[in-house]
Amino acid sequence: MAKPRFDVLGIGNAIVDIIARTQEDFLLSHAMQKGAMVLIDEARAHSIYAAMGPALEISGGSAANTIVGVASFGASAAFIGKVREDELGRTFAHDIRAAGVSFETPLAAGGSSTGRCYILVTPDGERTMNTYLGAAQELGPGDIDSEMVAASAITYLEGYLWDPKNAKQAFLKAASIAHEAQRLVALTLSDAFCVDRWREEFLELIRTGIVDVTFANEAEIKSLYQTADFDTAVAALREDAALAVVTRSEQGCWIVSREGTQRVGAVPIERLVDATGAGDLFASGFLFGLARGVDLSTAARLGALAASEVIQHMGARPETSLEALAQQNGLPA
Amino acid sequence: MAKPRFDVLGIGNAIVDIIARTQEDFLLSHAMQKGAMVLIDEARAHSIYAAMGPALEISGGSAANTIVGVASFGASAAFIGKVREDELGRTFAHDIRAAGVSFETPLAAGGSSTGRCYILVTPDGERTMNTYLGAAQELGPGDIDSEMVAASAITYLEGYLWDPKNAKQAFLKAASIAHEAQRLVALTLSDAFCVDRWREEFLELIRTGIVDVTFANEAEIKSLYQTADFDTAVAALREDAALAVVTRSEQGCWIVSREGTQRVGAVPIERLVDATGAGDLFASGFLFGLARGVDLSTAARLGALAASEVIQHMGARPETSLEALAQQNGLPA
Repeated sequence: MAKPRFDVLGIGNAIVDIIARTQEDFLLSHAMQKGAMVLIDEARAHSIYAAMGPALEISGGSAANTIVGVASFGASAAFIGKVREDELGRTFAHDIRAAGVSFETPLAAGGSSTGRCYILVTPDGERTMNTYLGAAQELGPGDIDSEMVAASAITYLEGYLWDPKNAKQAFLKAASIAHEAQRLVALTLSDAFCVDRWREEFLELIRTGIVDVTFANEAEIKSLYQTADFDTAVAALREDAALAVVTRSEQGCWIVSREGTQRVGAVPIERLVDATGAGDLFASGFLFGLARGVDLSTAARLGALAASEVIQHMGARPETSLEALAQQNGLPA
Repeated sequence: MAKPRFDVLGIGNAIVDIIARTQEDFLLSHAMQKGAMVLIDEARAHSIYAAMGPALEISGGSAANTIVGVASFGASAAFIGKVREDELGRTFAHDIRAAGVSFETPLAAGGSSTGRCYILVTPDGERTMNTYLGAAQELGPGDIDSEMVAASAITYLEGYLWDPKNAKQAFLKAASIAHEAQRLVALTLSDAFCVDRWREEFLELIRTGIVDVTFANEAEIKSLYQTADFDTAVAALREDAALAVVTRSEQGCWIVSREGTQRVGAVPIERLVDATGAGDLFASGFLFGLARGVDLSTAARLGALAASEVIQHMGARPETSLEALAQQNGLPA
């Protein structure tokens, strides 16, 4: 097996975040489920934007955020995702490349405009997301660069890829190439409502070993196993998954494998500003640790550190070097 | 004289900021003068963007930032400035309207794209600005809504308007209408290099009383009077200006009038994150105070408070309600 060219390759919906602070009553009056990600059409996108307050735009997308975090740790990283050749699409491409990530997916010349996520951040720091997939709908198997997948130690895929019509074929193609090349495949369950839409398919991915490493939060595994009890869900996951990491906000994370379950604490923060990207950046640190071959609890500590950085400012991309932050905290980098 | 419909009307270059953190050596290797605003053409804009790191986009423009701050204090505010009907132009229009500002300038259907300012923020929090004026070049006297000017207690103009080719005619038209309606005219000198480009014209505006209130920082009045000595510059300004306020970062501000000079302290901050908008938001508070009829030192305290908010986060628009902040600090709002 050749030495991998990339530590981690991410495949996901390429999205630009449009973020505004808001009060709780805005969510109520616009029928938004606090903390969730819902898919919206272009008409709803326009009406939400017209109603929401002054916003800032920052490149986002769950797997893309994770990959930018991996690069910020100093690892080699690549991303596959679809934007259109429009202003937001060029912004997305600029930002991910400027973060040191290899991004070669051709921009769509026509069709839907670049995907956008309208994010409302309430005073408690919780984020509520409304996603217009736009050009991300166009991602298909043809966009999967086989050589790139085979040359990546870990291919990381987001559950959100089950929403656009052709992306799941791209997902399965990438997973198959990765395993043929004896590489690892990782998946994030993305969102509790996404799990609700694709429960059986996600369970099959995990049970059949198409996925080697599963990332989820508490709400997502409860949705996966349709239980209100966290321990029940963890026990079920332990039966199904080779390796899983379940994040639980300030309570830390649970590393779940057939050998047992191990808890690693969260990194304390001064102030929760914007929870957007907490899970994405946890995955950055854990994947970076896996790629570097550290033990699982150290990988989880790297994940907790990255998550603590991103929730203390607006936006889901790190504002500081995670490599430097890891060094300051005595972690491998 | 009819009761004004707007407390403050701002007229300025409508710009979207594209902000990235950077290291000092980036400024050196790209021949940028730290802390200054320079005008760039579209080719330079593309080359700076290609070289700079991951960025976030936030609506900006000096006078526009000031006016958003005035609205955040709870006052009625309006803005006149030119963007194109493109993605960034729609973003600018959304953001300023969502902040509660009346913005009716028609978006240009064609021509140059919406103006952008590429802002590099160094680890010390200082910002270095590269402005592509784009559609802002198209602002002209025809864009000045005479009724709106006559109905505004204060018309606030930025010195930067001397850079686009037709905006100074728009500036002079607005000042004339304001004075005919017995309203006040305020000016910010904008930038030391801008003062260097337009020194004689700015001096004439101040000396002839076309401008009633002048805002400047230390570097700008030193440039205006071509002296390295702050006190010399203040003394000269006192001869020329009916009323001026000179900001001096953490040393506070000097209120300069024919009656004398009075210093008001800055508001202490925890951490300087991004100095962009410090002067703009100082003007917000001072103008709001003037419009409300408070004494000059209270107006300056409102200005210092608004400036302290904006420099503790990225971007030049307030992230919190300045009205609430003023109330928390026992100031009129």
